[in-house]
Amino acid sequence: MTTSTAILQLICPDRPGLVSQLSGWVADHGGNILHADHHTDAGAGLFLSRIEWDLKGFRLTREAILLSVDSLANKLGGKVQVSFSDQLSRVAIFASQQSHCLLDLLWRADNGELPMKVPLVVSNHMDLKSLCENFGVAFEFVPIESDRKEDAEIIILDLLKKYQIDLVVLAKYMQILTGKFLEEFSQVINIHHSFLPAFKGAQPYHRAWERGVKLIGATAHYVTEDLDDGPIIEQLIANVSHRDEVNDLIRKGRDTERIALARAVRLHLRCQVMVYSGKTAIFA
Amino acid sequence: MTTSTAILQLICPDRPGLVSQLSGWVADHGGNILHADHHTDAGAGLFLSRIEWDLKGFRLTREAILLSVDSLANKLGGKVQVSFSDQLSRVAIFASQQSHCLLDLLWRADNGELPMKVPLVVSNHMDLKSLCENFGVAFEFVPIESDRKEDAEIIILDLLKKYQIDLVVLAKYMQILTGKFLEEFSQVINIHHSFLPAFKGAQPYHRAWERGVKLIGATAHYVTEDLDDGPIIEQLIANVSHRDEVNDLIRKGRDTERIALARAVRLHLRCQVMVYSGKTAIFA
Amino acid sequence: MTTSTAILQLICPDRPGLVSQLSGWVADHGGNILHADHHTDAGAGLFLSRIEWDLKGFRLTREAILLSVDSLANKLGGKVQVSFSDQLSRVAIFASQQSHCLLDLLWRADNGELPMKVPLVVSNHMDLKSLCENFGVAFEFVPIESDRKEDAEIIILDLLKKYQIDLVVLAKYMQILTGKFLEEFSQVINIHHSFLPAFKGAQPYHRAWERGVKLIGATAHYVTEDLDDGPIIEQLIANVSHRDEVNDLIRKGRDTERIALARAVRLHLRCQVMVYSGKTAIFA
Amino acid sequence: MTTSTAILQLICPDRPGLVSQLSGWVADHGGNILHADHHTDAGAGLFLSRIEWDLKGFRLTREAILLSVDSLANKLGGKVQVSFSDQLSRVAIFASQQSHCLLDLLWRADNGELPMKVPLVVSNHMDLKSLCENFGVAFEFVPIESDRKEDAEIIILDLLKKYQIDLVVLAKYMQILTGKFLEEFSQVINIHHSFLPAFKGAQPYHRAWERGVKLIGATAHYVTEDLDDGPIIEQLIANVSHRDEVNDLIRKGRDTERIALARAVRLHLRCQVMVYSGKTAIFA
Repeated sequence: MTTSTAILQLICPDRPGLVSQLSGWVADHGGNILHADHHTDAGAGLFLSRIEWDLKGFRLTREAILLSVDSLANKLGGKVQVSFSDQLSRVAIFASQQSHCLLDLLWRADNGELPMKVPLVVSNHMDLKSLCENFGVAFEFVPIESDRKEDAEIIILDLLKKYQIDLVVLAKYMQILTGKFLEEFSQVINIHHSFLPAFKGAQPYHRAWERGVKLIGATAHYVTEDLDDGPIIEQLIANVSHRDEVNDLIRKGRDTERIALARAVRLHLRCQVMVYSGKTAIFA
Repeated sequence: MTTSTAILQLICPDRPGLVSQLSGWVADHGGNILHADHHTDAGAGLFLSRIEWDLKGFRLTREAILLSVDSLANKLGGKVQVSFSDQLSRVAIFASQQSHCLLDLLWRADNGELPMKVPLVVSNHMDLKSLCENFGVAFEFVPIESDRKEDAEIIILDLLKKYQIDLVVLAKYMQILTGKFLEEFSQVINIHHSFLPAFKGAQPYHRAWERGVKLIGATAHYVTEDLDDGPIIEQLIANVSHRDEVNDLIRKGRDTERIALARAVRLHLRCQVMVYSGKTAIFA
Repeated sequence: MTTSTAILQLICPDRPGLVSQLSGWVADHGGNILHADHHTDAGAGLFLSRIEWDLKGFRLTREAILLSVDSLANKLGGKVQVSFSDQLSRVAIFASQQSHCLLDLLWRADNGELPMKVPLVVSNHMDLKSLCENFGVAFEFVPIESDRKEDAEIIILDLLKKYQIDLVVLAKYMQILTGKFLEEFSQVINIHHSFLPAFKGAQPYHRAWERGVKLIGATAHYVTEDLDDGPIIEQLIANVSHRDEVNDLIRKGRDTERIALARAVRLHLRCQVMVYSGKTAIFA
Repeated sequence: MTTSTAILQLICPDRPGLVSQLSGWVADHGGNILHADHHTDAGAGLFLSRIEWDLKGFRLTREAILLSVDSLANKLGGKVQVSFSDQLSRVAIFASQQSHCLLDLLWRADNGELPMKVPLVVSNHMDLKSLCENFGVAFEFVPIESDRKEDAEIIILDLLKKYQIDLVVLAKYMQILTGKFLEEFSQVINIHHSFLPAFKGAQPYHRAWERGVKLIGATAHYVTEDLDDGPIIEQLIANVSHRDEVNDLIRKGRDTERIALARAVRLHLRCQVMVYSGKTAIFA
């Protein structure tokens, strides 16, 4: 029953007539727009648009769409991306020893809730191997020695190529990717266990407990070289009280982490996130 | 610094090309679209659209816009409404003895947060007279005798005409408007002190307390003849525990009530609410 | 590092001196109170108390505690229950075809987050068999034919005896237990997919969608013969908008369902829930 | 109908028997405990207790209570405080130009929701004078010149003495109190417009907007010399999106600010907050 759709995401300098131009282009080729969402950042002088239309009856082939859209982007001096809803993203999940985010993502993929295929899990520990096997996912053990991290990253980059990965999700991976890695592969979503920018860095729950905060949070964000400074996709909080020990914060945090991460991944996979000026616009 | 904008709201049978047609119409007359939001209800076969554009440089007069848009609506077999951001709605607030929602709305109007003018408060009690005087708002005392309610409503309808009221907000008015009243004046927003459809009718906090719920709510909705069944605009909840007595529910509820009501009124005044099939689409 | 504790839960008619009497009894036998929480329901004239103390150094054996506490309850005309934190409850989970609540509970048990042992899953469908096998839990298939429900319930009651079950959790079981069953086994927690008392009964998400609510909920409650009227333990909500189809409500609801259910089960297992007058007091 | 109660708050080194000792003391003098709440901070080795009992029928005078409790505190090596529910705190509110928190607190006091008397408002601007007059509260204008702040603080301290103030609430005062001031008068609650420790210092909404967070917050805390580092009493958040400009954050923030502040003040006035190790325990 679900039809295939095309999704166009455009960022370009703002000027009058853009909505009309984009929607006119879709209509001219027989497309029926299902969702259209736009945003103008007046300060940055930018126009952002996401248009999704039914491919049934659309008179351009996918190749022709890509060509036509590229020329449009050139004309507008902007950047454009087209995705097709029936082409599932191939996602690699990186994990360490904690299972909650990994299990959650695998279950949601199985479930159809996350439109993705997970062919690969990478981990620096062996703990989650059997969990991956239960879901029929390849588990690749790549230990990280702190003084030979680049060697490990080379192995991992090879795996990403071999498995044709589109997106990496850090599901409590607890390792920092180098700038070099990110240059090679930049589509990476991370979950940080605090409401950023509070408690950047290590042991946020311990520090939250020491500070005596009344709420803890989790932040899903794109990974950039500046640790915990990437564009934020989703944030979620939970209430805590003086009765909560650090372990309770960790326990409560697991629920905010996995839900914030799953929401962020879903938004990304459905092409509902656009990044600009170090932030995101979420067209949901 | 703020410019005047025009806002078009359209509901019509869905068909391909509508987004393009609407945005094309704006662009053709030199308008720059600031916000465009659409929704298709596949089940109902309806297309809903809200487009807001800058009036600066737009080549049609306001009268010409109204004419042109009417002819568009006819062609599409739909209903259309155009509003101008610089024409403040004239709002009458109906209250009874509780001050929290009334004070909140008057303060937000004063404050510029709610784009409205409040020339009139109607009440069946005298309690809130001086509050209104503090804000320089006319206070009209219209007592309601249960067997002569229609007489009171005739007086009220006259006041609405005299003060050229566009919208009535029931700020804990605790009186049910008759179908006859609503036929004469139908733009009415109410705040009900429960998360509808739970606890319709009288004394929702008492019944919530008896039931032992763990959360209470407030619902802002358009008023229809069927009590508490009108289209919902906004809902908000608060957590409660066994330690809360009925009075605590009432106290906590005041905050959810006034915030839910203020949000709903703001959405309405900014033409961000569209009603169809007994529900609302909120273009926020 | 964790010590074993004893937990006393008492409900009795209110009168002065009860807190002192209970805590004095603990102190007199060398117990160190770790948590003490009390509640007086003035309307019902009832006193509720939960006291947890360290068993290390306590001078009564567990048998002597039970005897002593029983005589105390008799004297006070109340009901008392004593639990020991190191005696894990044996929990049977009843499921149908949806996996989210079942998987979540099994994972949390594995994880140590829920202090319970799950020796048994009962289902009227085969879908979740392999999930149970992954966790090493016995899966018993007991189909329900609508005209022979009592036969199925007899089989199930036998399983509960065989596996020495203390608590049954209905994890989206989608079957109504008869009054007869509940007479035999009354410790049952259910998750209902609405914020009760709204949308009691079947298909709450469909009805929520039709009503156009702006928030959906989930309610974990003890099961009583009156469907969806049992004492509420936990409620959770999620925001929805006009863009959400029924399927989106179902998807969003899964997260509220599993978290509300897990919280309720945890509260029950830690003896933090006390039931009286059709409601619960939560000592958390 | 409401009876007068006494509230004892104790912090002392933890040891067995404290709950029994305290509740025994109340019972021995004929007191009926209405609320009793305790907390043990195992790491700090501290026991915190809040006990509230009915004064009706209690056999000690208020003076005798104070004496008796002092000797108890000495024996336990702890700190104790006794308050009586019928002795309303005298609160001074400090404000600047924004009205929302001030209006909210005055309304809640009027309303009986906050058990306090507000004899005095201090401000460094004239804007809120008439608001105070509407509520019959003395408005004292004390301008702050940055190089003569101490002179202003001396005037303010005199006002606090003159009006016999127990608690100062900074309702968006936008001025930093000096350490010298706090030495003279230390009971001060502030509202900071971020979820601390994120965005300490100036212009938190601007910085939140630049960072692209998806939620903003407000933090009510006791004031200490280290700016924004005082013990946190209450935190509240609101969701924001890319559509929100800085002004929208400020607008949305007003609601979280006034509610977080009102809750914190209420908790303080009801003696439900205990401060230790730079944090608070909230006995609510």
